[in-house]
Amino acid sequence: MAAVAIRLFIDERLSADATIAADGKQAHQLRHVMRRADGDEVLLFNGRDGEWRATLSLVGKRDVIFKLAEQTRPQTAEPGPWLLIALIKRAPLDLVVEKATELGASAILPVMTERTNAERANTERLSAIAREAAEQCGRLTVPEMHAPQALMSALAKWPGERKLFLMDETHRGIPAAEGFAKAAGPAAILIGPEGGFAQTELDALTNLPFVNALDLGIRVLRAETAAIAALACYQAVAGDWR
Amino acid sequence: MAAVAIRLFIDERLSADATIAADGKQAHQLRHVMRRADGDEVLLFNGRDGEWRATLSLVGKRDVIFKLAEQTRPQTAEPGPWLLIALIKRAPLDLVVEKATELGASAILPVMTERTNAERANTERLSAIAREAAEQCGRLTVPEMHAPQALMSALAKWPGERKLFLMDETHRGIPAAEGFAKAAGPAAILIGPEGGFAQTELDALTNLPFVNALDLGIRVLRAETAAIAALACYQAVAGDWR
Repeated sequence: MAAVAIRLFIDERLSADATIAADGKQAHQLRHVMRRADGDEVLLFNGRDGEWRATLSLVGKRDVIFKLAEQTRPQTAEPGPWLLIALIKRAPLDLVVEKATELGASAILPVMTERTNAERANTERLSAIAREAAEQCGRLTVPEMHAPQALMSALAKWPGERKLFLMDETHRGIPAAEGFAKAAGPAAILIGPEGGFAQTELDALTNLPFVNALDLGIRVLRAETAAIAALACYQAVAGDWR
Repeated sequence: MAAVAIRLFIDERLSADATIAADGKQAHQLRHVMRRADGDEVLLFNGRDGEWRATLSLVGKRDVIFKLAEQTRPQTAEPGPWLLIALIKRAPLDLVVEKATELGASAILPVMTERTNAERANTERLSAIAREAAEQCGRLTVPEMHAPQALMSALAKWPGERKLFLMDETHRGIPAAEGFAKAAGPAAILIGPEGGFAQTELDALTNLPFVNALDLGIRVLRAETAAIAALACYQAVAGDWR
C-alpha cells in the first residue's frame, strides 16, 4: 500500500507560501519516529484555515520547516455534539477522548457528579490525545477539551438552545434513536459515573427544559461504552453520517 | 451504595436446590479477590437455564460450593448480531470483544482478509474477556467466540438468511442507520482491517446476495471504533434498544 499521508495539527496561520517552523516535538516525530526526508509532503490543519499540503525542509540536526503549497480542503464547520462525561479512571477516559474525536464530538467536558470519586484529569494530556486522533481521522478541527468542573456549574451556564441528552441508566428515557431523531440544532450527550447519577441529580436534570432522558437498552454499559455508543447513535440518526 | 451483586457464568446445569463446586479460578476470585464470606449471595447463569440466586459455602482453605436458591430471571433468547472483524492487534481486539459483549453481539468471528497481517488470536483469552463482560453487563448468554478463519471461508458457509452489513470505508454504502432500519431477522456486521479491504474483496462481497454495504461517515474510524459504533447503531435502530 501507498504510505498514508501524514496529517498534523499546527496552531499557526496557514496560507499560501507561508513557512512555519515545526515545534520540537513534531520535528522529533517527523525526523526520528516517522523518518521523513527533506522534501517529503505532509498535510497541515489548524482548525481555522482548512487543510494544506506542505513540504518539509530538514534544517540542521533537529529542526523542521513546513513550506506550504496549496490548500487541499477548505475549512468547514464541524458542529458535532458536545460530550459531557463524569470523570472516570485514566485509561477509559483516554479511550473516550480518542473515540469521541473520531466520532465527531466538538467539545469534551469532564464533569464531577455526586458519585464521582476523581476530581482531576490531565487536560493537557487529554488535549494531546484529541489532537492526535483528529490528525488521524481526517478532521479539520480538534474537539475543545475542557478542564473538569462540577456538573451543576456546567448546567448553571448552559446555552439553552443546546439540547442535553441524558443517558439515563434507570430506563426512564425514551429509546436513544427515537430521541436523537427529534434533535434539531446543537446537541450534547451526558454520561454519568459508574455508580450512576444520584436520584437528586436525576430529578434536577430532568426538570431542566433543555434535558431529554434517553435509554441505551437493558444491558449495563460501562461509562466509556455508553459514551462511544451514544455518540455513534447520534451521528447515525441526527448527525453527519446521514 | 449497596454492594453490586456478583454475577458469574458457570458451565453447569442450574436448577433448584442444586449444589455446584466452583472451579479453582472462581473459588480463588470469590475468596481472595472479592473477599466473599460463607453465606454470601451471588447470581449464576450458564446461557441456558436463566439466572439463579445462590449462596456460597466456603469449604476447607480453597474450595467454594454454590447452593442454588431460586431462579431470578428465566432464560430468554439474545439474538444479537454477529460481529465479523478482521484480525487487529491484541489491545484493540480485546477492547472490541469486551464492548461487543456489552452491546449484545451473539457471536464474534475474527477473520483474515487480504490486508490482515495477523493470523492468530488467543481464542481462550478472548472467550474469558467475553465471559467477564457478560457477567458484568447482565447478559444471560456469552457471545460465541470463534477461532480466526479466512473471510472467504466464513462467506463460503454463510447462512443465506442472515444479512451481512459491510462497513464500506470507500463510501459506496448507504448511511448505516438507513441500512440497519431495513434489517429484519438475523444480522451480522463486517469490519475490515486498518488498511481497508482490497478492491477484489469489496467486489466479491458486494456481489453476494446477503451483503449490504453501509457507510459510517466521512471521518476515518479505527477498526475497533467502527466495530463498536456499528454495533451501537444497529442496536439503536434495528436491535433491542428500541
